[in-house]
Amino acid sequence: MKLGMIKVSIVGAAGYSGLELIKILINHPEVEIKHLYGSRSAGNRIEEVHPSLRGMISKEIELFNESDINDTNLLFIALPSGQAIQYVKAAYESGIKVIDLGGDFRLSKITDYNKYYKHDHSAPELLNKAVYGLSEWNESEIANAAIVANPGCYPTSVLLPLIPLIKEGVVDHSFISIISYSGTSGAGKSAAENMIFSEVNESVRAYKVGSHQHMPEIKKYLELFSGIEPTFSFVPHLLPITRGIYTTIQVKVDKNADAILCMEIFNKYYSNTPFVRIIHPLIPEIKNVTYTNFCDIGFSINNGIITILSTIDNLIKGAAGQAVQNMNIMFGLDQQEGLLKCSKKHLQQI
Amino acid sequence: MKLGMIKVSIVGAAGYSGLELIKILINHPEVEIKHLYGSRSAGNRIEEVHPSLRGMISKEIELFNESDINDTNLLFIALPSGQAIQYVKAAYESGIKVIDLGGDFRLSKITDYNKYYKHDHSAPELLNKAVYGLSEWNESEIANAAIVANPGCYPTSVLLPLIPLIKEGVVDHSFISIISYSGTSGAGKSAAENMIFSEVNESVRAYKVGSHQHMPEIKKYLELFSGIEPTFSFVPHLLPITRGIYTTIQVKVDKNADAILCMEIFNKYYSNTPFVRIIHPLIPEIKNVTYTNFCDIGFSINNGIITILSTIDNLIKGAAGQAVQNMNIMFGLDQQEGLLKCSKKHLQQI
Amino acid sequence: MKLGMIKVSIVGAAGYSGLELIKILINHPEVEIKHLYGSRSAGNRIEEVHPSLRGMISKEIELFNESDINDTNLLFIALPSGQAIQYVKAAYESGIKVIDLGGDFRLSKITDYNKYYKHDHSAPELLNKAVYGLSEWNESEIANAAIVANPGCYPTSVLLPLIPLIKEGVVDHSFISIISYSGTSGAGKSAAENMIFSEVNESVRAYKVGSHQHMPEIKKYLELFSGIEPTFSFVPHLLPITRGIYTTIQVKVDKNADAILCMEIFNKYYSNTPFVRIIHPLIPEIKNVTYTNFCDIGFSINNGIITILSTIDNLIKGAAGQAVQNMNIMFGLDQQEGLLKCSKKHLQQI
Amino acid sequence: MKLGMIKVSIVGAAGYSGLELIKILINHPEVEIKHLYGSRSAGNRIEEVHPSLRGMISKEIELFNESDINDTNLLFIALPSGQAIQYVKAAYESGIKVIDLGGDFRLSKITDYNKYYKHDHSAPELLNKAVYGLSEWNESEIANAAIVANPGCYPTSVLLPLIPLIKEGVVDHSFISIISYSGTSGAGKSAAENMIFSEVNESVRAYKVGSHQHMPEIKKYLELFSGIEPTFSFVPHLLPITRGIYTTIQVKVDKNADAILCMEIFNKYYSNTPFVRIIHPLIPEIKNVTYTNFCDIGFSINNGIITILSTIDNLIKGAAGQAVQNMNIMFGLDQQEGLLKCSKKHLQQI
Repeated sequence: MKLGMIKVSIVGAAGYSGLELIKILINHPEVEIKHLYGSRSAGNRIEEVHPSLRGMISKEIELFNESDINDTNLLFIALPSGQAIQYVKAAYESGIKVIDLGGDFRLSKITDYNKYYKHDHSAPELLNKAVYGLSEWNESEIANAAIVANPGCYPTSVLLPLIPLIKEGVVDHSFISIISYSGTSGAGKSAAENMIFSEVNESVRAYKVGSHQHMPEIKKYLELFSGIEPTFSFVPHLLPITRGIYTTIQVKVDKNADAILCMEIFNKYYSNTPFVRIIHPLIPEIKNVTYTNFCDIGFSINNGIITILSTIDNLIKGAAGQAVQNMNIMFGLDQQEGLLKCSKKHLQQI
Repeated sequence: MKLGMIKVSIVGAAGYSGLELIKILINHPEVEIKHLYGSRSAGNRIEEVHPSLRGMISKEIELFNESDINDTNLLFIALPSGQAIQYVKAAYESGIKVIDLGGDFRLSKITDYNKYYKHDHSAPELLNKAVYGLSEWNESEIANAAIVANPGCYPTSVLLPLIPLIKEGVVDHSFISIISYSGTSGAGKSAAENMIFSEVNESVRAYKVGSHQHMPEIKKYLELFSGIEPTFSFVPHLLPITRGIYTTIQVKVDKNADAILCMEIFNKYYSNTPFVRIIHPLIPEIKNVTYTNFCDIGFSINNGIITILSTIDNLIKGAAGQAVQNMNIMFGLDQQEGLLKCSKKHLQQI
Repeated sequence: MKLGMIKVSIVGAAGYSGLELIKILINHPEVEIKHLYGSRSAGNRIEEVHPSLRGMISKEIELFNESDINDTNLLFIALPSGQAIQYVKAAYESGIKVIDLGGDFRLSKITDYNKYYKHDHSAPELLNKAVYGLSEWNESEIANAAIVANPGCYPTSVLLPLIPLIKEGVVDHSFISIISYSGTSGAGKSAAENMIFSEVNESVRAYKVGSHQHMPEIKKYLELFSGIEPTFSFVPHLLPITRGIYTTIQVKVDKNADAILCMEIFNKYYSNTPFVRIIHPLIPEIKNVTYTNFCDIGFSINNGIITILSTIDNLIKGAAGQAVQNMNIMFGLDQQEGLLKCSKKHLQQI
Repeated sequence: MKLGMIKVSIVGAAGYSGLELIKILINHPEVEIKHLYGSRSAGNRIEEVHPSLRGMISKEIELFNESDINDTNLLFIALPSGQAIQYVKAAYESGIKVIDLGGDFRLSKITDYNKYYKHDHSAPELLNKAVYGLSEWNESEIANAAIVANPGCYPTSVLLPLIPLIKEGVVDHSFISIISYSGTSGAGKSAAENMIFSEVNESVRAYKVGSHQHMPEIKKYLELFSGIEPTFSFVPHLLPITRGIYTTIQVKVDKNADAILCMEIFNKYYSNTPFVRIIHPLIPEIKNVTYTNFCDIGFSINNGIITILSTIDNLIKGAAGQAVQNMNIMFGLDQQEGLLKCSKKHLQQI
């Protein structure tokens, strides 16, 4: 073990985000994995639960034990919403940094938890300690955070392309249409009749129209980062693919805002961010970002309406990848460490 | 052969829409298939070109021959756009009814053909002879038409849910966001590098943003059937499935227009149409309409915005099925003949 | 209702085979559906459970009630194995004909039920009353049967191509390699973690190697119909598609048995069967048989080994379609009635 | 650039294997990419041809130029069969090491090239200079090779599980049944009507039954590495997934050869190979090896027949990954360098 290695543990190692975290972290040069925690899976070895990991890591999944926590520098929590609160609290009280990949610390209002997540919040006093982990927009806050609320997958795909245009005042924020399509891994690994292959394959369906829990998250952070309160409608759809989100945003654009101006705006905010690729006039495709931490953004203006297209891998930039990006920020490393050797910043040095 | 059987021939029998037409028509009790025409495929038997048809039909594909045309009552044309014009002309001049499944007779302006279809139109004098075959909105015109321009797949999925709401004045027609996702069969059977399985699978991409040839068609017929000139933005996307279109429309809705009013509006226009199913408050799913002539429509109102969801099988209601529905109308049969034995109208008689 | 209509009821209407049965039967000209039975789904309407049926049928799902049974001529049972026995018994004792789409009456030995199905059999006295419903090989028995044990999906795909070659003694029956791949609908509609889309998509896995419950069924009926006891190895695999089975059989072939002889053998048994298509030298493809009752068979001989390829739709020829074919046989109708208007026999009359 | 970096160039950078090579090599700590060569794609930048590479590498694709070759230590060739010969010859004559990912140097007999690859061979004098790059079986030969013929994807999945059992004499080599299923990326990136999404999706088909070009390769190397001439039948099938091969082998096994003995045999050959995982009694699944260089092998013995299951990613262990593994061997690096940080050998040191 290198001196100064970051010792990390993961709660929820048996799920899909847990698996992606492990895959990234075992190749991260500055990280040592200490504990993998689970509940139903505890007692099994991680390579039994995720056979793809055989030959890459061998470790028993443990029940979380608060007394272990002190040999860890950072706790990742990859659990369904509502289940992370106790672990965040334990870590916070022990002075251990924590990144929650779920939704338990992204919102401010208890009523929003009741309404959208259908449960109470048992540690409301910690909500204002948590920093939103949208790496490209909150870097300095993240660097000093005790608790990072890692963004949701849909919000990441919506906020990255939309914040700059709203903030610069070039779009009509009174009605923004946001249509997202997601692969199935976003729904996690639990059995459910409407998620079996025969029900999802060769089909598409919208779901939670007007009631998805990512709506208050999008609203809160659009406002926080742009300074403007927009009105939007968000409709998620289920895609018959495993990984990837495709988001299509339509909004009226100022008469003065042509493609050149929009490109300037995107460049203003993203020319130095390694994981956002403004690919205009090309069209984003999910397959170009899967298994990467990239967010690809394209756009087109027609008849006074701008169409913005963005795509991410929901498990990487929408979950585990952005979590590691945030870990890098929190521990003073290059954002790209362990995520990709040759990315944009390195290219510019060539 | 029954006396009074409708004798039909098909130009473009080797393509996907041709195949669907054949599958429907061989089970249609009032139809006899006379000729199957092709160009590259001529000389082969239809069951060699479409092996799924073995044991169901056996017939040689012929080169089109104008002198044959008189033993046909109705000519279906299932060709890529731009290629149907000569056949429509031949049929029209011989007094044979014709249904063109392509786009060659849907628009009015030659300039639109130049701009969106990238070719000239060699029979502009016939454009105003053609009747648009949106069965639910143009039945009496279709009944008497010499030439039916069968609707495009995307327009069918957009017009059916949108016309009633615009016509009744309950939505803000100054900005309508229309997002459609289509399976790959809409692109036909030709080889193209960006349509091979490895390029389409596990991905999504928008395409022809702001320039799709179905835009002027949607515009023309929204106006024709609603009497109002709306402004909309339409973005088609490619789905990694074979069949089906899913369309999501978002538009500001009148304060007075609640779900009950919208349901009344839909019922006003569709309570007696056998193939439109208003399934509110359920959510449409592509798999519920594939291999059928149904269009399923759902909707939801939130924060002053109505989200309308519609889905069809692009090869059936979006092509061959609607064509047969129009044939039934043209020849005085029940609209559902050959399409589905027990559909809505029959149910109501039970 | 036509005089003489066959009145049928279905136990297990909420499952996938139940849905396919309904879709076929509502278009069958000689059938009236009396009751749809379910357990968990009872009290709901069938079009709520299967939204694709809206506008085609409207009926409440009932709890099975033995006193109803007398208004039914034929009871279809489409339940997971082990659950059909009581319904078969009730129908048999009431003198009602019954077709069981599950495995409860296909085997002869109670020990095989214990070993392969992992349960006892509560009505062993009825096992020898049941007739195996492999339509092409057991027509006269089926015609007079009180109980038809409809074949399993894998066995149908294996028996149809293999029986003729074994029976005619042209293959070395001491070692037959049988590899089958099936779509996911064969596993039914129940939620299971290893059947969710994310686990099945973009993957393949063998399962139940050497222990699948269709092995004793294949063994029993290969012997019954060929008169020879073969030794075979059967390995099923799960495919990331919804419908269809593809079976590849390899076995040493007699030196004298060339392609011409094999073709003669297949023709001897299948030239008059409407649903078996010997397509040699073409290669079967799943997509050519899905949504049909066809079994496509091809073969190739190389280096003394014959490779036989067969494909069916597991829900049609492998379940509901063959069940209706058997119903037609039991009630003296043309085998093809309700299954396909223009199939092989009709073609020969043209 | 580090001193001692291996300078590599790639012919065929625009194809799927070229893309995988680039993705692996830009993260390889001991490699510098010098030239990317193409023909149709020459003049474009590699990140335009493969948009997924944006932000990871930026380089123009060049036409191959023999005078460049001296700044390269190793030339990778990732071209369709028949097209590599001139580049291999040029490299060989300049004393540059070369790894050909295609089939042009795997066979010994010109007649086999005529029969299976349908072309002549323009440099037969080099055939005996080429060393077969099955890393686990030919390491010392590879280490000193001037020309490495990288194995085909199917042969890799067949040879790794089969050689040990044949070599140890525990299976009946007079009839081995080999059934393989492959994802579509194995067919490359060229447009072909039978490879478009609509033709491949929701289907399976066997192809080249008894005539696939990998048959003589399997035969040659089964014999070379086991010392025994086996008789086998090989049938490849096309799967509706992008990446992965699943191979199922059935063969009679010695009465004495139980699972324990077979496990010992596999361990004898693979206990120290980092990329072969013997996972018995687990069942291999394609998804556990995609995007990795692993070959997972399982097996099961029933009724005197052993079923062997193996799976690889056809683009990694079946092409680019094994090529890099061979490069590592040729240049004295750890086999795993650049392929996976924490694999089996490293684990054993923990």
